[in-house]
Amino acid sequence: MQNAEEAQEQVTGGRPIITMITDFGEGYYVAAMKGVILDICRNACLVDITHDIRSHDVLEGAFTLLCTYPYFPSKSVHVAVVDPGVGSERRGIIVATKDHYFVGPDNGVFSFVYNREPVKKVISIESQVYFRGTVSPTFHGRDAFSPVAAWLALGTPLEKFGEEIEDYSGATVLPVQKVEDDRIEGMVIHVDKFGNIITSISPETAAEQFGYSGSPKFFVKGQEITHSYSYYAEAAPGEIFALVGSSGYYEIAAHRSRAADILGVERGEKVQLELHTESSAASNT
Amino acid sequence: MQNAEEAQEQVTGGRPIITMITDFGEGYYVAAMKGVILDICRNACLVDITHDIRSHDVLEGAFTLLCTYPYFPSKSVHVAVVDPGVGSERRGIIVATKDHYFVGPDNGVFSFVYNREPVKKVISIESQVYFRGTVSPTFHGRDAFSPVAAWLALGTPLEKFGEEIEDYSGATVLPVQKVEDDRIEGMVIHVDKFGNIITSISPETAAEQFGYSGSPKFFVKGQEITHSYSYYAEAAPGEIFALVGSSGYYEIAAHRSRAADILGVERGEKVQLELHTESSAASNT
Amino acid sequence: MQNAEEAQEQVTGGRPIITMITDFGEGYYVAAMKGVILDICRNACLVDITHDIRSHDVLEGAFTLLCTYPYFPSKSVHVAVVDPGVGSERRGIIVATKDHYFVGPDNGVFSFVYNREPVKKVISIESQVYFRGTVSPTFHGRDAFSPVAAWLALGTPLEKFGEEIEDYSGATVLPVQKVEDDRIEGMVIHVDKFGNIITSISPETAAEQFGYSGSPKFFVKGQEITHSYSYYAEAAPGEIFALVGSSGYYEIAAHRSRAADILGVERGEKVQLELHTESSAASNT
Repeated sequence: MQNAEEAQEQVTGGRPIITMITDFGEGYYVAAMKGVILDICRNACLVDITHDIRSHDVLEGAFTLLCTYPYFPSKSVHVAVVDPGVGSERRGIIVATKDHYFVGPDNGVFSFVYNREPVKKVISIESQVYFRGTVSPTFHGRDAFSPVAAWLALGTPLEKFGEEIEDYSGATVLPVQKVEDDRIEGMVIHVDKFGNIITSISPETAAEQFGYSGSPKFFVKGQEITHSYSYYAEAAPGEIFALVGSSGYYEIAAHRSRAADILGVERGEKVQLELHTESSAASNT
Repeated sequence: MQNAEEAQEQVTGGRPIITMITDFGEGYYVAAMKGVILDICRNACLVDITHDIRSHDVLEGAFTLLCTYPYFPSKSVHVAVVDPGVGSERRGIIVATKDHYFVGPDNGVFSFVYNREPVKKVISIESQVYFRGTVSPTFHGRDAFSPVAAWLALGTPLEKFGEEIEDYSGATVLPVQKVEDDRIEGMVIHVDKFGNIITSISPETAAEQFGYSGSPKFFVKGQEITHSYSYYAEAAPGEIFALVGSSGYYEIAAHRSRAADILGVERGEKVQLELHTESSAASNT
Repeated sequence: MQNAEEAQEQVTGGRPIITMITDFGEGYYVAAMKGVILDICRNACLVDITHDIRSHDVLEGAFTLLCTYPYFPSKSVHVAVVDPGVGSERRGIIVATKDHYFVGPDNGVFSFVYNREPVKKVISIESQVYFRGTVSPTFHGRDAFSPVAAWLALGTPLEKFGEEIEDYSGATVLPVQKVEDDRIEGMVIHVDKFGNIITSISPETAAEQFGYSGSPKFFVKGQEITHSYSYYAEAAPGEIFALVGSSGYYEIAAHRSRAADILGVERGEKVQLELHTESSAASNT
């Protein structure tokens, strides 16, 4: 193993980091994946991003990856297994960007990565040399993606795993569209533990693609949200307001209260943003 | 510590891996165990298998261990604390097999290990030298099993911890029995996050012990399940079917639906398998 | 990075350990913090204490820290982010005691530390050199506390982060007070996964501060609890009793049952302890 470890040092500049996103929940599936990884790459630093992605919700997996992978060190390997099509003909892929590797099914779970930064190479995982001896048709996370991630972390060259492909599932953008002359509509992409409502609309998208200006005025579940602050404690307790959240998207929040509960909002709900608010109109006259 | 670390390298061939299964849930009990382990064996790689075993459910702990420990590298130490009898006269034990060490109460939590592979040695943990200075009568996980696991991972010889014993709690098999001329009955051993129903019946047990042949026909909650596939996406959305799951046991599943909810099944429910189905009977004529 | 790693070895005597307590729940906030830490201190051993502190419940965070940090090795860095005032003028601080470092907001989350052991130094975190390039006003956990913890773990001297202060949020004690001639009242500080009720009253506080003697007789929700044992399995199944729990505080428990459910008790409920019970009175005559 000495050689493998030396190779790994060269490739990763330190101990290998492997992050995991799945929809497997608490229990023995994730632990089996970790065992497989450590059996190949005993030195790996394993980081659970989350295993609580809603079952089969590829978009939520993709968004969670987007909000986390950029913070990890160069040469991290990110395994994302939200994989309703496991066992069928959907391919497994490795995506390489300048600083990161991604391993998982070719079903769109990496689409926000493609959207965020240039892709250096996408490999279709074919070589069964790097799989476990027996591959369960229902658990590629354990028998294919985990060992591939471990061998990749050890410095195995990309071309060993399979052929480069161009026809992978393309980039997606978060859903935002114009619905009225002066409004765009996005969706609630996440509700966090505090009941904060994270939307699919960022100030940049709103401004650059839809000419938004002014101060944010949101409509959700028939309610107008007109106040906005830069942090939670600026608001009065219970007051509902908008702010730009830590991931760069607009949030609807309530200081020391659960905005999602007050408004009756769940993931998937529509939210609208007015493009030219009165205050900005006023400031233009 | 230099010597301890050298010893550990010799014993484990790399950094020590210590896995943990408990019924302690989220919170400070598990964290205290980790602190104790790291204070002795700072180099340890700690892996949470799960801490969500149902309170006092030794069988669930044993099954979870069975589905995970074989994937971990050689010389891993597996701590399993599902321990309703803590503080009483029940013994603490170390079980050594060819490739793994197990530390926990002698209450059956290791019984599927005994069933799966030869046991090299079972030690009754007696030597308080390896315990924390003060042992709480309600938390041997923190004060006895964690430090023992850490010292074991550092390469402490087995005989230092206590005497070898032969009268440990014996092997158990998962519950499967013949209930009618042509039927065997097992139990639902686990319902996973997707609502898949994992049974205690494996194709091997059914064939070797009960002469099962044919294609699987299950009965659960008065319903017949006659279809079977090899992976989820083969079925139509919502269709209920049987398959051999990734742990080697029959599962009842529904593609992109929750079979457990549709059938109203929880852990512990009975399931029956017909031993000679019509299709196989037909193929025999 | 070689020099940083050498420095770190000197400071910590081994790989750096960084523990985390937050109220962020499952999801991408915690993972982003881990990415930031590993990007600075790739060698760190990250330990999740818990991320399930009730939202904004600083007292619960402080109690959880108290029940866990003393078990960790010397020079561990403990990050505690329960931070309803994030973005406002509340300071960030580093607390140094003989064996531990603490990083988080100056809002009382470290108050039980001050109460437990002498503080060597408290630093107001001012130097933005150790922050991420852009600091989100809603996520200092990721952009300020995590990088500061990582640099601290790497051996950065305390004085680099800011000025020593004396006027930090002072020590708190767990709520216990005399309410009648012969009774003290505390609160339920935690209900664990088993339904055990952990109170804010320890035998030491009761005896030293309130002259308690005798055997414990508790009152909670109008019920008297007069039995006490030293471990759970001593009681009859379902019997409700008191014991001294593994963290040193009185617990109300029920063997193989959930005392909290039987009594209808949640965190925050009041509990009373009689100071001089009949049995002790009797033994005094």
